[in-house]
Amino acid sequence: MIKVVIIGQGNVASHLTHAFISASEITLIQLNSRNLENIPTADVIIISVSDDAITTIAKQLKNSKSLVVHTSGTVAMKVIDNQRRGVFYPLQSFTKDKPVNFSTIPFCLETRNSEDIILLENLVQSLQAKAYKIDSEQRKKLHLAAVFVNNFTNHMYQIGQEICLENQVPFEVLFPLIEETAKKITYVNPKAAQTGPAKRNDAQTIKNHLEQLNSQQQEIYTIITKSIQEN
Amino acid sequence: MIKVVIIGQGNVASHLTHAFISASEITLIQLNSRNLENIPTADVIIISVSDDAITTIAKQLKNSKSLVVHTSGTVAMKVIDNQRRGVFYPLQSFTKDKPVNFSTIPFCLETRNSEDIILLENLVQSLQAKAYKIDSEQRKKLHLAAVFVNNFTNHMYQIGQEICLENQVPFEVLFPLIEETAKKITYVNPKAAQTGPAKRNDAQTIKNHLEQLNSQQQEIYTIITKSIQEN
Repeated sequence: MIKVVIIGQGNVASHLTHAFISASEITLIQLNSRNLENIPTADVIIISVSDDAITTIAKQLKNSKSLVVHTSGTVAMKVIDNQRRGVFYPLQSFTKDKPVNFSTIPFCLETRNSEDIILLENLVQSLQAKAYKIDSEQRKKLHLAAVFVNNFTNHMYQIGQEICLENQVPFEVLFPLIEETAKKITYVNPKAAQTGPAKRNDAQTIKNHLEQLNSQQQEIYTIITKSIQEN
Repeated sequence: MIKVVIIGQGNVASHLTHAFISASEITLIQLNSRNLENIPTADVIIISVSDDAITTIAKQLKNSKSLVVHTSGTVAMKVIDNQRRGVFYPLQSFTKDKPVNFSTIPFCLETRNSEDIILLENLVQSLQAKAYKIDSEQRKKLHLAAVFVNNFTNHMYQIGQEICLENQVPFEVLFPLIEETAKKITYVNPKAAQTGPAKRNDAQTIKNHLEQLNSQQQEIYTIITKSIQEN
């Protein structure tokens, strides 16, 4: 049995708690960040609070002999000052009341002491999820990459929806294409999968498209088209 | 029974042929564009060739009494000069040897004569697919929206992959996030689904991110961040 304490009540903490309760190899204690006076002994203490609060919580655990980890994609491991410290970061966008299938979620793991990684790998295994060793510098880069593939992609969806709305076309007509585009890169390199007027150097279509856009959309269209053509 | 002639041998023609052969309500004849001297009589003639070739093929069918349609997302219906003409456009990105599940594909339909739309709707129904009435002007806008949600999104994936490759992080770590982002917009408005540093106005993270990018990536990051913040 692995004894786990989770500190926090946010999205990630709730979903992790829910998942660990169902894992037979785990004994779980959940704490909120206001009752940290008597932390029970545990193999792993998971700090799953907002980025800004991690340092404050970690300070209160500085005498703990347990492995102390946080779940953030952006905060460096070293903000935890304990001798045994690490990161246990599930890379997914969690929605409050939507159930999470942890078996599809990659966990980015990092520990100060190499022997502690096994403990985190066992936690990941108890959730039937997949573990990746990712150091703090790589995690920073992953977060940057995620801004492109998640936030910026979502903004492309927003512009697509706006164009549909303005022209009384149901946005749902594009859902299967959106899904296929997201699936395709799991078996074809995105560069090789690229199609469309930019890729084909179809100047006439690009010109027609620009004429139909507002000035901000034109700027986006122009710079991404250029980047597709040059990369 | 609906008697269908398909002219063409490309991706879309092959996948449509394959699907119609399995549809019990359809009698199918496939022709390549070099043997158009004796076109059999049919209820619908589907011209499924490259955009540039549609006009040439359509001219050879100008005396046909059948409903003559093309399958293009970008070509106007009027390039077909027949009295009975239309568009039968499956909105999906087809890959050569990958089987297509037509039941998930939206067909954008247009006909000159309103009574002909029923014939195309029956064709769509025979494939258990979904039909949408979309006129040529709306289809142009859909194609423009598709550049954003497909081509430009795919380019965001490419940049994400490049950042991963440069930092020895497996790109596959991001696949579940990419899939979730694509799924989320089927039940949440993309604007409401947006998260990340641009949305939060997190100036410090934006500054850190820009310092890690090359100049072209910086331009893309800056203009999309601005657009997220202003829209």
